[in-house]
Amino acid sequence: MRVEIVAVGTELLLGQIADTNSQWLGEQLAAHGISSHYHQHVGDNHDRIVLVLRTALARSDAVIVCGGLGPTQDDITREAIAEVMNVPLERDESQIERIGAFFRARGRTMPPNNLRQADVPRGATVILQARGTAPGLICPLGTKVAYLLPGVPYEMSDMFERAVLPDLLARERATGRRATIVSRVLRTWGASESALADSVATRFSALEGDDRLTIAFLASGIEGIKVRITARGDDEAHARDLLGAEEGRVRAAIAERLGDIVFGVDAQTMETVVADRLVARGLSLAVAESLTGGLIASRLVNVPGASAWFRGGVVSYATAVKHDVLDVPEGPVVSEPAARAMASGVRRLLGADVALAVTGVAGPEEQDGQPVGTVVVGLDDGHDVTARTLQLAGDRPRIRAYAAISALDVLRRALDRSGA
Amino acid sequence: MRVEIVAVGTELLLGQIADTNSQWLGEQLAAHGISSHYHQHVGDNHDRIVLVLRTALARSDAVIVCGGLGPTQDDITREAIAEVMNVPLERDESQIERIGAFFRARGRTMPPNNLRQADVPRGATVILQARGTAPGLICPLGTKVAYLLPGVPYEMSDMFERAVLPDLLARERATGRRATIVSRVLRTWGASESALADSVATRFSALEGDDRLTIAFLASGIEGIKVRITARGDDEAHARDLLGAEEGRVRAAIAERLGDIVFGVDAQTMETVVADRLVARGLSLAVAESLTGGLIASRLVNVPGASAWFRGGVVSYATAVKHDVLDVPEGPVVSEPAARAMASGVRRLLGADVALAVTGVAGPEEQDGQPVGTVVVGLDDGHDVTARTLQLAGDRPRIRAYAAISALDVLRRALDRSGA
Repeated sequence: MRVEIVAVGTELLLGQIADTNSQWLGEQLAAHGISSHYHQHVGDNHDRIVLVLRTALARSDAVIVCGGLGPTQDDITREAIAEVMNVPLERDESQIERIGAFFRARGRTMPPNNLRQADVPRGATVILQARGTAPGLICPLGTKVAYLLPGVPYEMSDMFERAVLPDLLARERATGRRATIVSRVLRTWGASESALADSVATRFSALEGDDRLTIAFLASGIEGIKVRITARGDDEAHARDLLGAEEGRVRAAIAERLGDIVFGVDAQTMETVVADRLVARGLSLAVAESLTGGLIASRLVNVPGASAWFRGGVVSYATAVKHDVLDVPEGPVVSEPAARAMASGVRRLLGADVALAVTGVAGPEEQDGQPVGTVVVGLDDGHDVTARTLQLAGDRPRIRAYAAISALDVLRRALDRSGA
Repeated sequence: MRVEIVAVGTELLLGQIADTNSQWLGEQLAAHGISSHYHQHVGDNHDRIVLVLRTALARSDAVIVCGGLGPTQDDITREAIAEVMNVPLERDESQIERIGAFFRARGRTMPPNNLRQADVPRGATVILQARGTAPGLICPLGTKVAYLLPGVPYEMSDMFERAVLPDLLARERATGRRATIVSRVLRTWGASESALADSVATRFSALEGDDRLTIAFLASGIEGIKVRITARGDDEAHARDLLGAEEGRVRAAIAERLGDIVFGVDAQTMETVVADRLVARGLSLAVAESLTGGLIASRLVNVPGASAWFRGGVVSYATAVKHDVLDVPEGPVVSEPAARAMASGVRRLLGADVALAVTGVAGPEEQDGQPVGTVVVGLDDGHDVTARTLQLAGDRPRIRAYAAISALDVLRRALDRSGA
């Protein structure tokens, strides 16, 4: 199976938005061992969408089309695929009902424009919408197939996982060429990509020419670097055995050179890992934030069940707030004494077992004689009050984001140590 | 001139890196009024690069190819274009000299691999490298042309501005069809895409068949819906006149049907708009957040110069924190009285002129008998204390993100009213 991705939208051609959909889909297909040789972008123009779809179907077995399923006049992907399939569009009553229900649930009436989203090319199958109004479509074209998905990433990814991927895998199995591919992502924080690559250099060399195991690095911006290990086996058990053994070797190689930088695997995030440890220990948490301005609290609140262990936080952005609300003593506010006082202050104010505090200089100017990128993390666990100074690099939003995940990493390591 | 962009590299297909080059080039071409109807991505495979180049040359007048000009075995764009041109590659002695000088300047000797970068298809012109080792190439193909640029963004952008853009503009002038394109994005919050489309339906109809003005909608997920107006004029002044007049008509049509939903233009965000109004009025702000958990504060802190007007906030996630820290009276915490008390409590605690508060139910379960998606925004401006209940839809992260921008929108409208 060779799958081509087509992203529709004039805004992509004009560079007004980044095509994150093709990137995400490419990653998903690769993770499942499905080949993808081409991507295309095309604007909201009927004849050009038709041409792009024909080009894609001539050189690929399946096409995933993202975008152009909305309710407005410039959403014309449905019409284009109907022309390529050489079939009429038919209005699907059950979809009209579903779209109407979506609006009713929000106390609104369906605008007439949205009726177009119930149009289905004859012979196509609907992929039900779970998150918006536009249904997806599975459109057979002889032995080939086109999947039409909405351009909104959050709707697209849901439909891909729920309907497109299972259909693609079933088609692959039908060809009899399907090996089982499993993968595991190790999530790291605190090492550079080159240091990480050095630490597993021996594994890289050992796997050269091995077509069953591969190691790849994915830099994930502010979320650290991911190491993806992929194993290809004759069946699921075989693939999992290969993967498990290699994961052990990679983890050992990283730990030997870089210590405890693997904070989680696969979909785990720094905050879910911290949450698991707090829940296991029965501890509640409060945070005091200066330069991160609520970023840490908002990450923590995103963890389902946060109300069981998260008390809340204080964003002490103005210096006077640090003094008046958190009892931080007079003196420089970007300092270890200030970070410790912030932690103790918020722990007392919000009645938490453990408190994390962050202060620092996001820039553009230095503060308290400290250079841009200086970040101080304070921690009060009810017994000890500690602080640690970090030096982070980047522009203002990067320093703030790095400070948030770095502070959570300090808490993770502290919980691991005290729990030993 | 219709220009197609081709990005070469298997890492793009695998989703390991984002294709920022096509986005940047798309933006540049649009800014100079040059049409671009298609983009393609292809991996490091000779036959597939050849196919993609032939496809591009069949449907476009010029092709900009990024990537595959490096020194390693998988850099094969030079070979592919030579096949498409049906000419041999010839090693250019002056390029060998330049590449060697690049290495000598860094105290290194040129690896033999780099000799390949001096290969030039017969008939092509070299674009000199100013920032790395790979020269670019201008490859004539009958009346059409292919530009080969390195994939490194910093080398690519330099060559585009220095050699490709001037060549494209000269070709456009030769056709006599040169126009200037300008655009304006209106940013809206609070209407559905279809309601917005309904409101400007008369403008859509009026512009049908008009090749100088276009209107498009961009759904930007949690950031609302953008309306882009694009004008094509004989020169900059003419294009700006057309754009200004159409912007007035579109704004009037939206305001008539949907009221004050346009909160900003182009790069403005809800928080920069709120910040501008606070600065203009000399007011300081504090926030109290429950379900948004710091999201509002972290958006506000991202505005440069926030320390001039942002005091900070309290994330009162646990109910006890609402009572103890913000003096919220006993009773249901998802309610207008609780939201008002949160606003007044944080205004007092942090000593701000104006305070914004948000409480609500992000789910998955209902709370205080209120369904998931119920969000109450409280506002204390030092004179009046008000609250407003909203009903938002989506999963947990969406409801939280919508609640944050909705609350800021409530503040924006209040500042506009009281400032009148």
